[in-house]
Amino acid sequence: MTTTLTVELGERSYPIVIGSGLLGGNFDLAEYVVGEDCLIVSNETVAPLYLDALRADLDGKQVESIALPDGEAHKTLATAESVLDALVRGRANRDTTLIALGGGVVGDIAGFVAACYMRGVSYIQVPTSLLAQVDSSVGGKTGVNHPNGKNLIGAFHQPRIVLIDTDTLSTLSERELKAGLAEVIKYGAIANMEFFSWLEGNIDALLAKDAMALAYAIQKSCELKSEIVADDEREAGRRAILNFGHTFGHAIELCQGYGDWLHGEAISAGMVMAAELSGISNADSGRLSKLIERAGLPIKPPAIGAKSMLDAMGLDKKVMAKRMRFVVLNKLGDARITADYDADRLATVLEAANA
Amino acid sequence: MTTTLTVELGERSYPIVIGSGLLGGNFDLAEYVVGEDCLIVSNETVAPLYLDALRADLDGKQVESIALPDGEAHKTLATAESVLDALVRGRANRDTTLIALGGGVVGDIAGFVAACYMRGVSYIQVPTSLLAQVDSSVGGKTGVNHPNGKNLIGAFHQPRIVLIDTDTLSTLSERELKAGLAEVIKYGAIANMEFFSWLEGNIDALLAKDAMALAYAIQKSCELKSEIVADDEREAGRRAILNFGHTFGHAIELCQGYGDWLHGEAISAGMVMAAELSGISNADSGRLSKLIERAGLPIKPPAIGAKSMLDAMGLDKKVMAKRMRFVVLNKLGDARITADYDADRLATVLEAANA
Repeated sequence: MTTTLTVELGERSYPIVIGSGLLGGNFDLAEYVVGEDCLIVSNETVAPLYLDALRADLDGKQVESIALPDGEAHKTLATAESVLDALVRGRANRDTTLIALGGGVVGDIAGFVAACYMRGVSYIQVPTSLLAQVDSSVGGKTGVNHPNGKNLIGAFHQPRIVLIDTDTLSTLSERELKAGLAEVIKYGAIANMEFFSWLEGNIDALLAKDAMALAYAIQKSCELKSEIVADDEREAGRRAILNFGHTFGHAIELCQGYGDWLHGEAISAGMVMAAELSGISNADSGRLSKLIERAGLPIKPPAIGAKSMLDAMGLDKKVMAKRMRFVVLNKLGDARITADYDADRLATVLEAANA
Repeated sequence: MTTTLTVELGERSYPIVIGSGLLGGNFDLAEYVVGEDCLIVSNETVAPLYLDALRADLDGKQVESIALPDGEAHKTLATAESVLDALVRGRANRDTTLIALGGGVVGDIAGFVAACYMRGVSYIQVPTSLLAQVDSSVGGKTGVNHPNGKNLIGAFHQPRIVLIDTDTLSTLSERELKAGLAEVIKYGAIANMEFFSWLEGNIDALLAKDAMALAYAIQKSCELKSEIVADDEREAGRRAILNFGHTFGHAIELCQGYGDWLHGEAISAGMVMAAELSGISNADSGRLSKLIERAGLPIKPPAIGAKSMLDAMGLDKKVMAKRMRFVVLNKLGDARITADYDADRLATVLEAANA
């Protein structure tokens, strides 16, 4: 079964196609390639698994490919430059299409290069990790990390299509699967209590890679994200609730030097901290921690220290006019952005988490 | 006298303010700074001349500054990265405003960094060269060069305001002044015969830095460019006529290794070649060459060779679907974009120019 959602953004609208067996001849991706040329951007882990299948879906097009080193540590301007170099070497023109085949890192880099090459060319997302399928491939946020802060260099640039073949999850490591579930849990926590409850009932099936459960979780996550993005493409307001747990999470990643903890792991601990800061009922925060724990994800940061985390947060994108902004929960299933948080409580949360 | 034009781009509309004595306390630029912080991006030549005056216009704001090395050779991703580093060091947030004080290189880099930092912050153009005042500061094209091609890395990102103090031209070298006049002549040639005739009558006054003549030429150029940009912000069609002479010109710059010839010099020779390719009357092409020559600008490329130029053009942004596109003249004052040019004539033009 194939499901198609649409991200409604006027002339920048695009489909998210979700299904099994889409790669390798069952979907005419060539139709979404504007010109004659495309460059597939993948990484050393994913390319050997799915590059040939993807090529088969691009019949009649001139296809080049590049495999980047794997991992968040390589999400740098230097790696983006290597992709730009490949485009220049191939004399790629304005009609060229980049195709990101891989996880969030590959998608973010390829999207950013597409945003910058000749002031913007088309790109397509073919996410192969759960995290990329439910989060980073949708919504047009692209970018690379600066040594001092995550995603500090980037652009809003929407893809032409997001093609999600759920079969690619069969090769995903257990750790990566769990990291993706962190974002899935996030959608329930910030925007949909019914989905949160469904996750409580199906978390074991998801961990066991039950195909039906995964397909539903991906579809629901993409739906919730699409609605939020359609309302606020460039994050002038409400879209920022998608950053629930991310202010703390990014600080963890920054202090760890990107790569030690996966993004999904960092935001898991971050969501627990953000829930504590929210001052919601113990019952609600308990349910969130419990679900995260059952997903095999951390509910506490590694040993960093409250001071270092606070310092690292000083550079987060959600800092505005020198006053930090946080995404907090009104209750489970309902989030808001606020700069009006309790500073003492923030200190307590940081100290308790780092105790 | 101060003139204000508006670039009409819906919610991205912005004013171009043109006048004498604007810097140094006569214009409230602080009003256009969104947040509390700004970073002035200038270069080592311009900063000593106008940085203090610009600071005086930003009363009440937190102002940092950075001086880049001067020249097109430094319009690189590495230089852009040094500006990004300065923003990160200063813990600049999403409300920060970049202010470009200088010529086209400074404006293009600062605009590109503004487009990429945290996926886009505000910026202001304070162009101090004639070329930047009549061309690069208006229209939102930003970017840096790749070693193998000009402006291959960039973004469309509109400024909040363009502030043109015509007094800054007093410190502009004669060579830079002439290079700016190349773009002024271009506007007449592609879009307005009346203005072209006016230039024929006033070129000597412009070369003598007559204040009234310069102010009129700047205003008229900005008007013509604004209209074209308002119709086609992202260069899907007609905006490309602004690239008249640029396909040849970029090839000259690329073969010369950026910096030997100024941009305005390269496009001067490029415009003469493009006029030859157009097949317009000898009278029209003669008038164009004559005006360019009277402006003290080259009407022939340096000794590169036809083959090298053709090769270099293969990477130009105006190459689409592997068929080159050229901006040609229907007649003087009227241009069009075409892929349907006479290939033999192109060869003849290249050989004649490189003979």
